[in-house]
Amino acid sequence: MKILVIHGPNLNLLGEREPGVYGSETFEKLNNDIMAEAEKLGAECEIFQSNHEGGIIDRLHEARKDCDGVVLNAGAYTHYSYAIRDAIAAIKIPVIEVHISNTASRDEFRHKSVIGPVCRASVAGFGRDSYILGMEGLAGMLEK
Amino acid sequence: MKILVIHGPNLNLLGEREPGVYGSETFEKLNNDIMAEAEKLGAECEIFQSNHEGGIIDRLHEARKDCDGVVLNAGAYTHYSYAIRDAIAAIKIPVIEVHISNTASRDEFRHKSVIGPVCRASVAGFGRDSYILGMEGLAGMLEK
Amino acid sequence: MKILVIHGPNLNLLGEREPGVYGSETFEKLNNDIMAEAEKLGAECEIFQSNHEGGIIDRLHEARKDCDGVVLNAGAYTHYSYAIRDAIAAIKIPVIEVHISNTASRDEFRHKSVIGPVCRASVAGFGRDSYILGMEGLAGMLEK
Amino acid sequence: MKILVIHGPNLNLLGEREPGVYGSETFEKLNNDIMAEAEKLGAECEIFQSNHEGGIIDRLHEARKDCDGVVLNAGAYTHYSYAIRDAIAAIKIPVIEVHISNTASRDEFRHKSVIGPVCRASVAGFGRDSYILGMEGLAGMLEK
Amino acid sequence: MKILVIHGPNLNLLGEREPGVYGSETFEKLNNDIMAEAEKLGAECEIFQSNHEGGIIDRLHEARKDCDGVVLNAGAYTHYSYAIRDAIAAIKIPVIEVHISNTASRDEFRHKSVIGPVCRASVAGFGRDSYILGMEGLAGMLEK
Amino acid sequence: MKILVIHGPNLNLLGEREPGVYGSETFEKLNNDIMAEAEKLGAECEIFQSNHEGGIIDRLHEARKDCDGVVLNAGAYTHYSYAIRDAIAAIKIPVIEVHISNTASRDEFRHKSVIGPVCRASVAGFGRDSYILGMEGLAGMLEK
Amino acid sequence: MKILVIHGPNLNLLGEREPGVYGSETFEKLNNDIMAEAEKLGAECEIFQSNHEGGIIDRLHEARKDCDGVVLNAGAYTHYSYAIRDAIAAIKIPVIEVHISNTASRDEFRHKSVIGPVCRASVAGFGRDSYILGMEGLAGMLEK
Amino acid sequence: MKILVIHGPNLNLLGEREPGVYGSETFEKLNNDIMAEAEKLGAECEIFQSNHEGGIIDRLHEARKDCDGVVLNAGAYTHYSYAIRDAIAAIKIPVIEVHISNTASRDEFRHKSVIGPVCRASVAGFGRDSYILGMEGLAGMLEK
Amino acid sequence: MKILVIHGPNLNLLGEREPGVYGSETFEKLNNDIMAEAEKLGAECEIFQSNHEGGIIDRLHEARKDCDGVVLNAGAYTHYSYAIRDAIAAIKIPVIEVHISNTASRDEFRHKSVIGPVCRASVAGFGRDSYILGMEGLAGMLEK
Amino acid sequence: MKILVIHGPNLNLLGEREPGVYGSETFEKLNNDIMAEAEKLGAECEIFQSNHEGGIIDRLHEARKDCDGVVLNAGAYTHYSYAIRDAIAAIKIPVIEVHISNTASRDEFRHKSVIGPVCRASVAGFGRDSYILGMEGLAGMLEK
Amino acid sequence: MKILVIHGPNLNLLGEREPGVYGSETFEKLNNDIMAEAEKLGAECEIFQSNHEGGIIDRLHEARKDCDGVVLNAGAYTHYSYAIRDAIAAIKIPVIEVHISNTASRDEFRHKSVIGPVCRASVAGFGRDSYILGMEGLAGMLEK
Amino acid sequence: MKILVIHGPNLNLLGEREPGVYGSETFEKLNNDIMAEAEKLGAECEIFQSNHEGGIIDRLHEARKDCDGVVLNAGAYTHYSYAIRDAIAAIKIPVIEVHISNTASRDEFRHKSVIGPVCRASVAGFGRDSYILGMEGLAGMLEK
Repeated sequence: MKILVIHGPNLNLLGEREPGVYGSETFEKLNNDIMAEAEKLGAECEIFQSNHEGGIIDRLHEARKDCDGVVLNAGAYTHYSYAIRDAIAAIKIPVIEVHISNTASRDEFRHKSVIGPVCRASVAGFGRDSYILGMEGLAGMLEK
Repeated sequence: MKILVIHGPNLNLLGEREPGVYGSETFEKLNNDIMAEAEKLGAECEIFQSNHEGGIIDRLHEARKDCDGVVLNAGAYTHYSYAIRDAIAAIKIPVIEVHISNTASRDEFRHKSVIGPVCRASVAGFGRDSYILGMEGLAGMLEK
Repeated sequence: MKILVIHGPNLNLLGEREPGVYGSETFEKLNNDIMAEAEKLGAECEIFQSNHEGGIIDRLHEARKDCDGVVLNAGAYTHYSYAIRDAIAAIKIPVIEVHISNTASRDEFRHKSVIGPVCRASVAGFGRDSYILGMEGLAGMLEK
Repeated sequence: MKILVIHGPNLNLLGEREPGVYGSETFEKLNNDIMAEAEKLGAECEIFQSNHEGGIIDRLHEARKDCDGVVLNAGAYTHYSYAIRDAIAAIKIPVIEVHISNTASRDEFRHKSVIGPVCRASVAGFGRDSYILGMEGLAGMLEK
Repeated sequence: MKILVIHGPNLNLLGEREPGVYGSETFEKLNNDIMAEAEKLGAECEIFQSNHEGGIIDRLHEARKDCDGVVLNAGAYTHYSYAIRDAIAAIKIPVIEVHISNTASRDEFRHKSVIGPVCRASVAGFGRDSYILGMEGLAGMLEK
Repeated sequence: MKILVIHGPNLNLLGEREPGVYGSETFEKLNNDIMAEAEKLGAECEIFQSNHEGGIIDRLHEARKDCDGVVLNAGAYTHYSYAIRDAIAAIKIPVIEVHISNTASRDEFRHKSVIGPVCRASVAGFGRDSYILGMEGLAGMLEK
Repeated sequence: MKILVIHGPNLNLLGEREPGVYGSETFEKLNNDIMAEAEKLGAECEIFQSNHEGGIIDRLHEARKDCDGVVLNAGAYTHYSYAIRDAIAAIKIPVIEVHISNTASRDEFRHKSVIGPVCRASVAGFGRDSYILGMEGLAGMLEK
Repeated sequence: MKILVIHGPNLNLLGEREPGVYGSETFEKLNNDIMAEAEKLGAECEIFQSNHEGGIIDRLHEARKDCDGVVLNAGAYTHYSYAIRDAIAAIKIPVIEVHISNTASRDEFRHKSVIGPVCRASVAGFGRDSYILGMEGLAGMLEK
Repeated sequence: MKILVIHGPNLNLLGEREPGVYGSETFEKLNNDIMAEAEKLGAECEIFQSNHEGGIIDRLHEARKDCDGVVLNAGAYTHYSYAIRDAIAAIKIPVIEVHISNTASRDEFRHKSVIGPVCRASVAGFGRDSYILGMEGLAGMLEK
Repeated sequence: MKILVIHGPNLNLLGEREPGVYGSETFEKLNNDIMAEAEKLGAECEIFQSNHEGGIIDRLHEARKDCDGVVLNAGAYTHYSYAIRDAIAAIKIPVIEVHISNTASRDEFRHKSVIGPVCRASVAGFGRDSYILGMEGLAGMLEK
Repeated sequence: MKILVIHGPNLNLLGEREPGVYGSETFEKLNNDIMAEAEKLGAECEIFQSNHEGGIIDRLHEARKDCDGVVLNAGAYTHYSYAIRDAIAAIKIPVIEVHISNTASRDEFRHKSVIGPVCRASVAGFGRDSYILGMEGLAGMLEK
Repeated sequence: MKILVIHGPNLNLLGEREPGVYGSETFEKLNNDIMAEAEKLGAECEIFQSNHEGGIIDRLHEARKDCDGVVLNAGAYTHYSYAIRDAIAAIKIPVIEVHISNTASRDEFRHKSVIGPVCRASVAGFGRDSYILGMEGLAGMLEK
């Protein structure tokens, strides 16, 4: 079982960017936690970050060949990238939408996810644990 | 640590109601899984089901005294019950919103959650595992 | 063949409430007419009234076991109760939406029925005969 | 008592057109059923079909002189013909809106009836029985 | 002269719930102030609280027989309960809408009152004095 | 100078149709007044009535050859007939929009005219004098 | 018979302001034509211009005592001044809405008139003749 | 304690203007009642009326120096004057919004108050008693 | 293979009507080009023009018996005729939507096609070549 | 070169009004800075303040005769005064829209400027320097 | 004559991605067909694919120097990329919008094309023939 | 003091692209003017152009380390790139939004800036001087 974790735009600044919203631990720390969780789940794991919409699409395309599932935090692209939506629909492996903050209690524009309808499930608001829970839930899905 | 799990309207019909959407395992089976998860987390757990909006509000009120956190599947009330929203805001313990199905890929009216802004976090689309992941995430929050 | 007739909120005041809209015959008179029609159709009939959304949901749930079809005047819940909508969708017996007045020529908010898409058919504007025609139409459906 | 039954656009193709929605019995069969029902009600009956908005208006105008009431299935004109609406308002005899299918559970544009506010009552979703129930309800109105 | 004061959902938590918005005096203290005001007005007074929409409707129905006027704080039901709206319209005694906070300066969804059009008058934003002013205004109306 | 006066749908019922809105003088009387006004203006005049959208379009097309200007009361087609709008734009002679009633104080759907942007001018609310004033204004335009 | 003609904001610049839209004859010329028309109609006439919303309201108030009817070009206030609307509704004499240009074929915001529903009639698009036709129509109304 | 009472546009016509809505007692009578109430409250009181938006803003500005609180009936400006809203926000003394009629049951455009969010409280629908209750409530606020 | 080409309202004026938009070649010339293209495709071809919505529906109905496919320029009916939409859905042969101009860069109301969802394909903006390309595309479809 | 600087409603309270938003320096200080900047630019300068919409319109009208350009902070009128918009469009000299605060990050209603489309340019969010930059930009325009 | 064919995001997966919608022939096969059609038209042809919005913009910019026209399937960028829209408007060569599927009968968000208004023409719904017809139509345009 | 000037999509075509809107001087000329202004302000300056959303985000991220402020013309990304918005919010240095044209008087979609709420200030409509004024304003901010 191989899981791909994709961090979208601005997530590379974690720890530094709006710490009140996103926490003050570094991006590296988060990625270490993700790798540890993968190990716990007995899964292989790859982490990818890009600020480029096209870069995320390219990586999703490849994932259909080399991964079993994806945990995706698409950052702000969540709210308008129909191109990422089409990429998710085009590949057949399950994609889980995750968010660090509770998007429902932030700006109006963050209430709508255009990728939601083609993802399988979503987790939001648990801080960085959203990634961990998303991986766990994905593993559960893949096992069935 | 005591967790309250609230099932809103129509969830008592699980296993029988639209099995294509909600699965065919019984409501009792789900509740057993919830109790087992609680045990794994070392938490006390109570399960409450009501089809009455006022009944859910009453139980949330009491929870501020006898529970540490709530996992809430408000069913269709999710989409219009501002009274449940006010109840969540009125009590200070964390409430986690969960849904069995991926509400984002169902009817338009299920895309908006009026309780979302006052809940702490949300999990949706993992089938009945949404409850399990919500409990786990809540436990993580309470431990911090 | 057993038919359940459900009267939603405020219908218990029939005869007294806005007689220009709802007529001045009493609620009892209406219920007698309903029982008489049932007899004419050779059907068993039960009448239920509640001002509680949860009460209507509870009764709909039971109906899946003890009735063959429902004639439902959901009153004002027609326009916002997604929980009643889900209850109708959850049970498999046919539900007919009826209204005494012609809701299309009243307040804007009465033009939209959130339960309409999950009911099988609707009758509105024939005064109390809407119930009678709804029962007749339901009986025709059940016979096929 | 003379009843006019008007079939609007595309209803002449009944039996052939989208049988999953409209049933597979022919248009002639429906008209025979309508005439039989009229006889049962002791009413004279005339049936008129036109695909032309103006043709329906012309016939409604004449009806104010030669009929006591109208059962109207305006087909797609239901959703935008304010001219037919004005014709209904202009004549003083009662007009009953009928639909074969349950328009509330079809396309969004079929949820709004522009003629609804000036009709007296409506029946929808009982298949071809919608006409029969509409005639019966109209007869009840005319008798009062 | 008998006045009924109805407290809607979550108002039983007054003093404890969001004290920045609703003040920190207890619910009992408010009810004592209401009874004192009634005495000053020479009126009989009854206080009723329910978190149940149907419970509020039931009490409003009875009020048409045993009260001369109602002071109603419908809490969050203010913003979507068309069933309570119909109950107010169905009884003929005057109903005064009151709110502790200035709903116009809170969340967008609190700006619209669906019961407003059928109430006689409204008072909002004077803290708990809103009840007192509402009772006084109602008494003035009843005396005319 | 030749003026064409077009009466759209339902105007043939003038005098009989909703006399509170449209007055009780007959359609013939109005047409006589129109002919008299034409004479006063020293203009030739033709009057055309149709309930058919296509019939009005056909007559507008011919008008580009045999008339100098048109006074058009498009009735309810005013509010949705983009086909009549295109016909007006296609012919080069001036078209004046007239209405008997003050459409701005009637139903919401009568507030918008889709032909307004391609007409030269409009007159509404003077009762049948709207036609007379429209003819006069048109004559003034043609003389310049 | 005394007619008041009110010119709203920016109309004092006529002849100079956007001559493509409003023509190049001066404001004085227009006022002379208005006085000449009044004489033709055997009516007394007063002309008032103000760029101040409050000034127009004050003058409308006085008009209820010293005039029989008003011809009002409210300029841009047409599209948002509910205070002028209330002033028109408050006085009982008829007010005719006039516009030089065909507002329906200009900016979107000019398509809606908030004073339209309380005026008796309207004339637009005949250039300065709109005033003349409005006076004539008003005179016809007053004579009836 | 000095209270300023501001009457906005068209209120000077009270007693004469739409008496069905606003009552038939004169404006002078209302002002006498206001002065009497002030005396009862042991407060100094000034009354100001203007149909000019700018005049109301100017008076509000001065009030920050010479008054302790304001009771404001902004008439139709209530619904669009962001400039009055800014003036209220700019001065620090409390402003109470009052309306004679129950604006919630009148025209749609009267349902939204743009000044509501910056006022402290509101009273509407008690007829002229709305002013009296508003003064009383304001006095209560100032005493705290 | 028989192709029916339908020209909707106002297209009979081609060459004369707004030549900046539609070109200055005559309607006859276009029809000749269409017949020539049919010949090139080895198809039989019939051309039909009507300004009547009902006329177009009638012709579409017949086409289900005597044609293999339709190229339809519904003119302005494109934007509101749900009755033509239903006619297209009712017949089973493929219908191709064509437009001479690029409707996407014209008036807002021309951006939405209500017949688009039931047509098989569309061509717009190539001038009269839109018909030629539409015929070619249709022929390709029919051959498969 | 003569520049007119117009301050709209409530700006006379600068230094006193919401200092967190508008700064705490006085209105006089700002005007001195404006005069100094004008001197630096070698331009004549006049400053005008009014809380009256009509007063601003009158001053803009005069400006077409005695000034070369205008720097306008229309305050809250920015968001609804179509009459000021028309005045700007009516005069031919360039008008620059300025705001002290960054209106885009304040209330929703402040995001839309109805005068924006007829101004030449805008500056917002630089505090009082917005005026200085606006004057500088205007001078650059006038020199070209 | 040189034609550039641009495939936007996710089109590289053709044959594999949602074959029910896009067909099961490979991307290579489509490109071969395009090159063959170019040869038939006597045109030079280049094919470019990118999942990157910026990449498509860069290629469009270059096209203004090295191509005569563009056939563009912008994929999901069609529905929100105003940057691609600006690029099309910036270059002067004609751009034809093509889509494989009939976007009008798919998701709501696919009904609006933000690039449509700056393209010259469009073809949609002919499957992969949409490209061929678009090239043919473009060649026709370039020849004129 | 180091200023970063970012040019977004399509700005590299300045001088060539729609010269009526953007002027005909080259992109190089603009950049020279920017460097000259920087020198005048005693600031270091770097200029960056990209058509890639991700490229702009990457450069903004770096700017938090190597620059004191940013002048950003995000081109069409202004209207939908929530990802750029998040990047601006994530870095703490001030960002000034600039536009060459007056976006308020162009297409509707250009009226809304999604990056406006997180920028500090904006300048638009002064042609290329918008950059110069933005740099000047930024320098003023940084000096405080």
